[in-house]
Amino acid sequence: MKVQVLYSGGKDSSLAAILLEPFFDVELVTCTFGLERTWENACEAAHEIGFPFKLVKLDPAILDECIDEMLKFGYPRHGISLVHKRALETVAVLGEAKHIADGTRRDDRAPMLTMGEIRSLEDRHGIRYIRPLAGYGRHAIEDLIAEHLEIVEGDTTAVPKADYETEIRSSMKTRLGEETYNRIFPPEHTQSRVLRRYSS
Amino acid sequence: MKVQVLYSGGKDSSLAAILLEPFFDVELVTCTFGLERTWENACEAAHEIGFPFKLVKLDPAILDECIDEMLKFGYPRHGISLVHKRALETVAVLGEAKHIADGTRRDDRAPMLTMGEIRSLEDRHGIRYIRPLAGYGRHAIEDLIAEHLEIVEGDTTAVPKADYETEIRSSMKTRLGEETYNRIFPPEHTQSRVLRRYSS
Repeated sequence: MKVQVLYSGGKDSSLAAILLEPFFDVELVTCTFGLERTWENACEAAHEIGFPFKLVKLDPAILDECIDEMLKFGYPRHGISLVHKRALETVAVLGEAKHIADGTRRDDRAPMLTMGEIRSLEDRHGIRYIRPLAGYGRHAIEDLIAEHLEIVEGDTTAVPKADYETEIRSSMKTRLGEETYNRIFPPEHTQSRVLRRYSS
Repeated sequence: MKVQVLYSGGKDSSLAAILLEPFFDVELVTCTFGLERTWENACEAAHEIGFPFKLVKLDPAILDECIDEMLKFGYPRHGISLVHKRALETVAVLGEAKHIADGTRRDDRAPMLTMGEIRSLEDRHGIRYIRPLAGYGRHAIEDLIAEHLEIVEGDTTAVPKADYETEIRSSMKTRLGEETYNRIFPPEHTQSRVLRRYSS
């Protein structure tokens, strides 16, 4: 059974892929608006941990929709969840895998689909949405990451996210200015990048 | 890393164990009030799918508490969740594993711990509670079960649950009579028992 895992090159989506590996044929999928080449970092991380990689282009209209949502609420959570939902839909529409997964955790607030959104996604596209980390708390995830992955962590300046989040941040800064950007995005937001996988 | 998985001999807790197996040393734990020997079915299923098995005795006061809860609400859901929570606590108090898991699903209504109960369980006992099926919907679980397990299904008369639920049902019938029992428990409640595991 094939599963496509939404992939950012970070520790959570990498661990999600590792947890699925014994049971599925895993392909990592990184989404991009095509504005920057940060996805190359995800491609490299995918190679390091030994999974096939695919790049998927997102409709630029999703970026506009996302920025509108962030401005409306004054913080990024709803916009991040919206673009994540659209990314899942975009991958579902490809029709390449019946199972589509991501690295969202039990304790995450964003990105997060509601149960209604999950059921709608599954029913409309005939897919199964899987969240391998949904049943794990922070400490259990840290235990598994320590056992399987070597990572580097830092704020978004030092370790930019390899998926569309960096593009959203840049677009917002360019379109609306530094001041609006700083008001909406919290100054410290730790990201992780996977360097390699420990052989088990 | 050792994980103890609350085990009923059914398809969900069996699949939970299988999903954890590549990453943990799995031990299956079946809880009993010591009133019946239905746990022997769980022991047999555990043997069939190739995991070590442990029997853990529950305090009979939990049974009283559970029946009170069921009578109070007029349906079994809250009582089932309560005894499940107490079973997790009982296993946590043993202190034999830092990770404790069960086979509860994303779409289950009972047994189900609230986020507050989960955090309280983890913090009070210094354990990590894992729900391997929490990120899977019904169809994805069916796909995995079809691939890994041969099961038999039927109502609770034909395929009694191998954990404490059968003991709760019997106790309620004995203590409060057939009429009260039938009012509280739905007449059809499909159970599964694992017969064997397909070699992968």
